[in-house]
Amino acid sequence: MRLSEAVEWAIHSCAVLVSLPHGAALPGAKLAEFHELPGAYLAKHLASLARAGIVEATVGRQGGYRLARPPAEITLWDIVAAVEGEEPLFRCTEIRRRGPAADRPSAYKGPCGIALAMRNAEAAWRAELERVTLADVCLGALVNAPPASVQRTAEWMAAAAKLPTA
Amino acid sequence: MRLSEAVEWAIHSCAVLVSLPHGAALPGAKLAEFHELPGAYLAKHLASLARAGIVEATVGRQGGYRLARPPAEITLWDIVAAVEGEEPLFRCTEIRRRGPAADRPSAYKGPCGIALAMRNAEAAWRAELERVTLADVCLGALVNAPPASVQRTAEWMAAAAKLPTA
Repeated sequence: MRLSEAVEWAIHSCAVLVSLPHGAALPGAKLAEFHELPGAYLAKHLASLARAGIVEATVGRQGGYRLARPPAEITLWDIVAAVEGEEPLFRCTEIRRRGPAADRPSAYKGPCGIALAMRNAEAAWRAELERVTLADVCLGALVNAPPASVQRTAEWMAAAAKLPTA
Repeated sequence: MRLSEAVEWAIHSCAVLVSLPHGAALPGAKLAEFHELPGAYLAKHLASLARAGIVEATVGRQGGYRLARPPAEITLWDIVAAVEGEEPLFRCTEIRRRGPAADRPSAYKGPCGIALAMRNAEAAWRAELERVTLADVCLGALVNAPPASVQRTAEWMAAAAKLPTA
């Protein structure tokens, strides 16, 4: 019962892209370097984020990744779902329909009460992830970040960002 | 990102035990038979439920499993945590402390804002699982169960239960 570490990588990567100058992009290798992440694995997850319309890849010498939408329009759920998929945490295999007390399949009209209760709990998790945007998270992360790290991030990003060519 | 199927087994097993006559126990093999589950694997998870004080094992010829507490005092979270452990879904590896912009470790006073946001969402999931008891779940499951299956369950349980010896 654990989200993959790629969820942490993906959220941090999106948070880094928030500080890019308008129109600029950051090469995937630089994104990996910023958090010392394995480049090939991160690239795979950046591709998932791109397919989900969260980041977009620009091509050419100035190519790289940038957010495809404003950070206030990207929720944590968007990122989690892009990386992990939208399959529920709890999977009901309808075991109530097996065994000596089972009725014929057509007699089971409503969903299993156990699956319903588990899905309700999951909906609460998802609702909270949908409520929080990347903009909220970046603000929260900035508050707790050491000021020197914030400043170094800005300098590093300015040097690493590929500005759009005229 | 998925709970193990043992969570489904464990909740259904506890739900079956709710209908035992007072003081009676149900052999583990019968519990497995009731939902056509693999006996050895189910036994492992029943042992986890026993360690968590959710079920208790009685010994001897009349031995088996029964609930250790009233169903209204067992929450879905109790069962999920017994089977899956209490480790969080999201694990923060503090990747903000790595890379070219990182500050010295002692400069990081508060938790990472990304981890905080993910933990808040998880807390909503856990709160919902803690709010719902096995008694609630059984009522919900009964409402959606075919009447014939409910009746067969009662008959099967009456035959399979081991009543306490005088």
